[in-house]
Amino acid sequence: MAVYTEVSDDDLARFITHYGLGELLSYKGIAEGVENTNYLVHATGGTFILTLYEKRVDPKDLPFFLGLMEHLQARGVTCPLPVRDLQGQMLNELGGRYAALVTFLEGVWPRKPKASHCLELGRALAQMHLAGDGFALTRPNALSLTGWRPLFDKFAARSDEILPGMHKLIDGELQYLEAAWPKSLPSGIIHADAFPDNVFFIGEKLSGLIDFYFACNDMLAYDIGICLNAWCFEADYAFNVTKGRALLKGYNEVRKLTSEECDAMPALARGAAMRFLLTRSYDWLNTPKNALVARKDPFDYVRRLRFHQNAKSISTYGAETTP
Amino acid sequence: MAVYTEVSDDDLARFITHYGLGELLSYKGIAEGVENTNYLVHATGGTFILTLYEKRVDPKDLPFFLGLMEHLQARGVTCPLPVRDLQGQMLNELGGRYAALVTFLEGVWPRKPKASHCLELGRALAQMHLAGDGFALTRPNALSLTGWRPLFDKFAARSDEILPGMHKLIDGELQYLEAAWPKSLPSGIIHADAFPDNVFFIGEKLSGLIDFYFACNDMLAYDIGICLNAWCFEADYAFNVTKGRALLKGYNEVRKLTSEECDAMPALARGAAMRFLLTRSYDWLNTPKNALVARKDPFDYVRRLRFHQNAKSISTYGAETTP
Repeated sequence: MAVYTEVSDDDLARFITHYGLGELLSYKGIAEGVENTNYLVHATGGTFILTLYEKRVDPKDLPFFLGLMEHLQARGVTCPLPVRDLQGQMLNELGGRYAALVTFLEGVWPRKPKASHCLELGRALAQMHLAGDGFALTRPNALSLTGWRPLFDKFAARSDEILPGMHKLIDGELQYLEAAWPKSLPSGIIHADAFPDNVFFIGEKLSGLIDFYFACNDMLAYDIGICLNAWCFEADYAFNVTKGRALLKGYNEVRKLTSEECDAMPALARGAAMRFLLTRSYDWLNTPKNALVARKDPFDYVRRLRFHQNAKSISTYGAETTP
Repeated sequence: MAVYTEVSDDDLARFITHYGLGELLSYKGIAEGVENTNYLVHATGGTFILTLYEKRVDPKDLPFFLGLMEHLQARGVTCPLPVRDLQGQMLNELGGRYAALVTFLEGVWPRKPKASHCLELGRALAQMHLAGDGFALTRPNALSLTGWRPLFDKFAARSDEILPGMHKLIDGELQYLEAAWPKSLPSGIIHADAFPDNVFFIGEKLSGLIDFYFACNDMLAYDIGICLNAWCFEADYAFNVTKGRALLKGYNEVRKLTSEECDAMPALARGAAMRFLLTRSYDWLNTPKNALVARKDPFDYVRRLRFHQNAKSISTYGAETTP
């Protein structure tokens, strides 16, 4: 739960006049979200999400994130559309924070994703990858291969506090990934955080993607590796191959994976598990136990990583045929 | 900030079908509110607040609160209207909690109330008092005179931890109130918690009252005493007589205060200050420092109480003429 920055009624009413959105009708702080402060805003001109960017977001990245949403929206991806103010700006200031208004997207995120959700997700992810083509700005992925070792170095000495053997597990896996990480797969804009809480559905139908604040340039298939981790494991850490198959099928329907991408899938899934294992481990050791934001257990990703280490090929994830 | 109870998309979608409200479009946990969990729900049938009643609410009181909102709405008071399900029930269960859906009320609460807000508040409070007439259920005010001494007894031994001299201050004031508390003023349904965050405005115009979860039967003018405390002091604890005058003027326009009510106003304001001083003191001593909910400083009400102790008559609060 997170409203880090309180906004007064007078300040917000003044703020929205700069956008020509009419009168402020109501606004409510939203309890979801851990990085930024979000308000759901009703104005006579429509319904919007107001985001105040908190300290973990680098302001230099904001034009990339906001511009990307606008770029994707214009190319048919259903995602929040940043609203430009009467001067044409998407980024402003409110309550001492950088702030943006985006259109409100209806939909609920699936607490228990089914295979039908994964199929829709695969399609939407591929559509996003295709639509990202031509976006003028770039943003390297700080949480990919070259970022992992330096992040590990920050907590390596304490890593066995999380779980005995964690140091050895991560160090060995990093050595593997440093050797095996693919280098020449098709690249472009990836979402990089398409967890269920960032993918909205109305009924069984996907209604949009949100939260592009980890989006970056990287190998497209790495985004699938992230989703295999985030969508296709059950609560007991069993991989649900029906969901994996649906995800890959949906993706292939819209953008056909190359044989190199298929071959690389086990390594990409391992890398994705490593990325979340590293950030969760770091946060676990560095977040006070009584913090407002719940710490996410890194152990979830130890279990996922072990599964991927035993994956022989993309068929482990349910691909119907090896191209 | 407070979402104590998480609700899954499947459970909520099923829940709203019982109300015939169509398809679930979205729901967001609201960060405001300290007693209960609230979600803002969009369905094809409209926009609603879903409230899950947490432990501090006595379930036996819920028919009173919900029935009161329905009663007031039917008599022209703008407040949330509890939605009846297809079986005619206002109260149901969700996520292991008692739950109700009420219509969403547009409006923002004034962070810095002006005299114009106080004028509108006075009118709305009087309208509510008149509209409460004829409501079939009753609920005694547990936080009025007879409840204060037992509440003080729970923390009296530790009261000087809050502020040296607190024990003597409260004990002496309770003795005064036990002798001076009015006994035969006009009574009826009062809101009892009409703080600025429970009174919505669109622009300068009052758009509705919310949060009837302290409503009860008591002297009507006691509600004004609460509002004088909650609306008419500045951040430096100075009483703003312009705001007091506006509040009383607005009230008198709709329901004329009797001369007995006017005479009793200083005592009623003292009692109201005591009520919040007691609950805040109790919470201050009993809420862990790292709790999700911010502790409110009881000192605010020490300063208010001292002002009221020196009030000679209702003219201190800005009444233009003594009737």
